[in-house]
Amino acid sequence: VIGRWPSAHPDAPTVLVYGHFDVQPSGAEEDWTSAPFEPDVRDGRIYARGATDDKGNMLAPIRAARALEAAGGLPVNLVLLFEGEEEIGSPSLPALLEQHREQLRVDVVLSADGVMLSDTAPTVMLSFKGLISLELRVRTAAVELHSGLHAGFAPNAALALSQLLASMVAPDGSVLVDRFDAGATALDDNDRAQAAALPFEVDAYRAATGVTTIWGEPGYTPRERNWFRPTLDVNGIWGGFQGEGTKTVVPAIATAKITCRIAPGQSPESVIASLRAHIERHSPAGAASELVVVGGVSGASAIRADDPTIDVVREALRDAYGVEPTDVRTGASLPVASMLMDALGLPTVMLGWCLPDERMHAPDEFLRLENFDRGPRVYADVLTRLAAVRP
Amino acid sequence: VIGRWPSAHPDAPTVLVYGHFDVQPSGAEEDWTSAPFEPDVRDGRIYARGATDDKGNMLAPIRAARALEAAGGLPVNLVLLFEGEEEIGSPSLPALLEQHREQLRVDVVLSADGVMLSDTAPTVMLSFKGLISLELRVRTAAVELHSGLHAGFAPNAALALSQLLASMVAPDGSVLVDRFDAGATALDDNDRAQAAALPFEVDAYRAATGVTTIWGEPGYTPRERNWFRPTLDVNGIWGGFQGEGTKTVVPAIATAKITCRIAPGQSPESVIASLRAHIERHSPAGAASELVVVGGVSGASAIRADDPTIDVVREALRDAYGVEPTDVRTGASLPVASMLMDALGLPTVMLGWCLPDERMHAPDEFLRLENFDRGPRVYADVLTRLAAVRP
Repeated sequence: VIGRWPSAHPDAPTVLVYGHFDVQPSGAEEDWTSAPFEPDVRDGRIYARGATDDKGNMLAPIRAARALEAAGGLPVNLVLLFEGEEEIGSPSLPALLEQHREQLRVDVVLSADGVMLSDTAPTVMLSFKGLISLELRVRTAAVELHSGLHAGFAPNAALALSQLLASMVAPDGSVLVDRFDAGATALDDNDRAQAAALPFEVDAYRAATGVTTIWGEPGYTPRERNWFRPTLDVNGIWGGFQGEGTKTVVPAIATAKITCRIAPGQSPESVIASLRAHIERHSPAGAASELVVVGGVSGASAIRADDPTIDVVREALRDAYGVEPTDVRTGASLPVASMLMDALGLPTVMLGWCLPDERMHAPDEFLRLENFDRGPRVYADVLTRLAAVRP
Repeated sequence: VIGRWPSAHPDAPTVLVYGHFDVQPSGAEEDWTSAPFEPDVRDGRIYARGATDDKGNMLAPIRAARALEAAGGLPVNLVLLFEGEEEIGSPSLPALLEQHREQLRVDVVLSADGVMLSDTAPTVMLSFKGLISLELRVRTAAVELHSGLHAGFAPNAALALSQLLASMVAPDGSVLVDRFDAGATALDDNDRAQAAALPFEVDAYRAATGVTTIWGEPGYTPRERNWFRPTLDVNGIWGGFQGEGTKTVVPAIATAKITCRIAPGQSPESVIASLRAHIERHSPAGAASELVVVGGVSGASAIRADDPTIDVVREALRDAYGVEPTDVRTGASLPVASMLMDALGLPTVMLGWCLPDERMHAPDEFLRLENFDRGPRVYADVLTRLAAVRP
């Protein structure tokens, strides 16, 4: 959906704000305290699938524009670009951007699909990971086999998949795939300082997530791993019998969903090639293993710390919170940023209030009402300042 | 169901024949060539769930008794004991055997739930494995976590489960759990000769199953592994996202179904204890791992090679096939045999025609029509000979 909201002022700059109204699957409804698609306000939070990612945050620029309109008119020409395919990698967006190239001549690109890393200290996002969506499929026989007749000598697909995954990631969290991190820039002192500037409160993290042990690649802090290092994440696994009770079978097929979050500087194609080479070498005897790309593939993206729009966002956040914003990065991916850069030639500046504890993609996703109200005020301030900076 | 069919002759011995009419789940109907619960005859085979395990074979003693009755009367008193819970471990059978103890005073116990290892050379079954049904449950967090925000430092349940399973079984198929084989008798020359006597035709096995590589514990032939060595079989695995497309989550929970086939001489309890000790030592950092017994637990059972009923069965099979029967064992389990021994004090002699390629527990299960007709003839012969042996 492309919406255009012209400024009251001639020669005002044009600002595009991106958001998305599609959401991740809700998962099992019984895992939710209230129904996932009926918003429920409890304890200063609104609970619903999409509350924070991204429906709630997508409303901020709309409400800001309404307020500015009521106060005399928009200081900038606003273009709202809202899509319904973000969670599946925005497959239609590149063609749509190409098709509407004339309508999308803008001076600044903001995104309301943004993360704020702390509730009290505002953060400004400088880089995103790339994303590769894969399935690892293992087959050991033509049909499931009865374990009484075949156990001991027929290979087992569920076990072979487990062994293959275990060969890819060590118990300490190091990825064991040769050249998996090829191209990733070595961290310099500035990167390390940036990661250290944002406190990582282990006790609070444990309380919020139920995680007992922080884990991962040796030689890096948790945040450094998440921001700067490529990761290999098993999103799901299945094979053989999964029902109640017992079924004495040797599974013939087992599958894992895998996503890799790759670092700035890395080529998605070379990461995929490194995984394929590993699987060819380590697939257990008797297992035919295949790695299939099942979703969008995007590289990482980074924005310059001295970008003028970044400066405007920093000022607006400083005024809203009374605290100097912190430059941060993320382990999440923004394929949309690569697409917008390709089509419009502009970097995407993030401005949204999805907080790390707000259970995006999980049951009981929520948005703080406080941010639901702060978002439109900050957007109005940013749009006003941009009119001054970019006449 | 207990059915009684008295002999025409006073003082005839009483023979109990066991069978079961319950079946394994059919699995996805689209994996079947014809509907699983509508028997379909094709190419001299009858296809249906339960065709060979055990409905088709269960009919053999009934049809034998009908033929004997028509020919002048049964030579033995026949007790038919057919149950509907075999595939879930016969939970009600022990109490039922106890309750009907007086009705079940018999001289011989046969079972129509029997396997024949070859289509041309008849086999006589001397031992069964024990069975332990387990779930291995791994938890790493309270909720699924977004992989962009948590990857690199939050432990992953699907990966932790994979690592734990890979720690339990080596790529070559050796079980790595300390004391997993405690109590299993070392193989002697007789055992090795018995296993070698039955040819294991690798090419035919590959063609029938789609298995490309025979696998397993070094130092044993495939058949020795299956008959004499305890095995650890992953029957199924699941955790995290299993749908279409991509969901960028770090799973919080993952589960594996495991059955262990234990050897004569082993204690199920000590095998479970060895697994628990292994899991405690090898559960990856950040993973809470629990092993739960979810089904029946039974020890292995063996019958003496010189049992008189075994001799009668050997003679009847020799006459039916024109070939000397081979003594064999199996990697499958017969909890029912333990229960019948406990309640009736008699060993169970197997007489059934479930062949290894007949896809029991899998899609397109079938029974050869040739054996559907041979079964009643051999049963009639066995019952007649038993009347002579046990007056």
